[in-house]
Amino acid sequence: MKEFELIQLLTRGLHTNAAVRLGPGDDCAVVDLGVPERQFLLKTDAVVEGVHFTSDTPPELIGRKALARNLSDVAAMAGRPIAALVTLGLPRGFKPSWVEAVYSGIDALARRFDTAIVGGETTSNPERALISVAVLGDVSRDAFIGRRGARPGDAVFVSGELGGSLQGRHLTFEPRLVEAAWLAENFRPGAMIDLSDGLAGDLRHLLKPDGLGVELLEKAIPISRAARVQAAAGQGAKPALLAALTDGEDFELLFTLSSKQAVALHDAWRKRFPETRLSCIGRISSKPGVLLRGPRGVRELQDHGYVHFQQP
Amino acid sequence: MKEFELIQLLTRGLHTNAAVRLGPGDDCAVVDLGVPERQFLLKTDAVVEGVHFTSDTPPELIGRKALARNLSDVAAMAGRPIAALVTLGLPRGFKPSWVEAVYSGIDALARRFDTAIVGGETTSNPERALISVAVLGDVSRDAFIGRRGARPGDAVFVSGELGGSLQGRHLTFEPRLVEAAWLAENFRPGAMIDLSDGLAGDLRHLLKPDGLGVELLEKAIPISRAARVQAAAGQGAKPALLAALTDGEDFELLFTLSSKQAVALHDAWRKRFPETRLSCIGRISSKPGVLLRGPRGVRELQDHGYVHFQQP
Repeated sequence: MKEFELIQLLTRGLHTNAAVRLGPGDDCAVVDLGVPERQFLLKTDAVVEGVHFTSDTPPELIGRKALARNLSDVAAMAGRPIAALVTLGLPRGFKPSWVEAVYSGIDALARRFDTAIVGGETTSNPERALISVAVLGDVSRDAFIGRRGARPGDAVFVSGELGGSLQGRHLTFEPRLVEAAWLAENFRPGAMIDLSDGLAGDLRHLLKPDGLGVELLEKAIPISRAARVQAAAGQGAKPALLAALTDGEDFELLFTLSSKQAVALHDAWRKRFPETRLSCIGRISSKPGVLLRGPRGVRELQDHGYVHFQQP
Repeated sequence: MKEFELIQLLTRGLHTNAAVRLGPGDDCAVVDLGVPERQFLLKTDAVVEGVHFTSDTPPELIGRKALARNLSDVAAMAGRPIAALVTLGLPRGFKPSWVEAVYSGIDALARRFDTAIVGGETTSNPERALISVAVLGDVSRDAFIGRRGARPGDAVFVSGELGGSLQGRHLTFEPRLVEAAWLAENFRPGAMIDLSDGLAGDLRHLLKPDGLGVELLEKAIPISRAARVQAAAGQGAKPALLAALTDGEDFELLFTLSSKQAVALHDAWRKRFPETRLSCIGRISSKPGVLLRGPRGVRELQDHGYVHFQQP
């Protein structure tokens, strides 16, 4: 069973109350705390040694990543982070200086995005380090952008470049908080998500609940330099396009927008964020499935990126 | 270095912002989110297989404990829980039915205290299960009860009975949310904490920051039946009094109150909570240190409960 399906199964029917506007299943939960003009976001996420980083990863970057992943989820809701809580699971024989460096990485990113670190717990996790972060954020009332809201005909956009993140960017990526807030204020995307499991997989979260599909344009997929270099190295590496479609941990924004606004968005984005690429990669359709249009025709993209040529 | 000191060291100087009323170092952080009559509480805590539970512990009780520890921290601030986030670290070969049972234990307790479970993540933690919970709560504005606020002459109270929690109560304890809310409304304790590391250690959190001390009355310490049974079994077991002073995971409320109110509190508590013991165990003094008055004189209680007879 895949993680997402397991979580979906488990979190269905859990206790809710009058404060909850949006429960588990989106990038963040949304709660109403009685502030007239705002709603609040809650999210938790963990990184584990040997899974999300290695014992060689500089500890500042481990701490940075642990917080950045959560901030990326706040960005995906077009929210703003307020405060974060940290739990460290520390292995046998850990060095206090390592812990200090992890916190220093967390703190440096927290300062940049004005996120207060309001709690820190440590516990023993004998075999490996684990860092769990929970974040509280806010968003203008009813202005959060969830995973549902795509409509047939909408254009699909992605920020930045995709693939090959494990070459390094997974430790240094920028949570797209500024970009997402600007998007929400100026263009109001229908649906938005941050890419953590790869474009091909995460796209489905915007489609499936509403029975929608998408046709992607192969040549429009923004392939990162890391994915190209990796592919060129050969030796069983994924082709660069496949890496861009299926590698995880891109932490870019994927969103839908009325196609009428597509050109205006492109122009405004280029002015506001000249150093960050924005790509219109396809169009939402009312027919379920993810299709990829390339020079040799249309292929269907399966879960986890396995690509078949479509039968004529 | 002890956990508390390490955390204190690490969380000192971390980024804060205008929303934060109380940062790391208390049972919960307190944030102001712009609601005129309320403030909000944030807390995170984790339980780990082999540390806080064993591979034999029924999974419903593991889930229950993971949430209950956080609710106990909300109680210690005289707050009310609103929502909780869960991260599961799952070992190799975990059974989905085990995860389901953990969630069922979390959910049953969440229902009882009307705490919405708004997020669930899973990650791999190959060698052992780990459950990290973060909770959001609220409290009437400026009504939270922190660890600071004890004054010389105050009476020191503890709910329930202490010691021997590992015999079973650590899995089934009641977070004292109802009792704490009632206390705050009717008696306004000066300082309050929940007992997680043992009375002798946790008491110091109420004393040290203000340079205070306490004299405890040995015969007033409420010793649990579990601690007595354990001590009677002999074979290197702690004496029952020492167990009550130093065993962890009691999750009872420890608080201070003006001694003028002590009798009124006792009477009112007995009426309101006839099944839960409340003990006045000593008195705050202006001289630092924890003294224990017994039949053979006054002893000083050291950190972690090591007891010396005081030199005459």
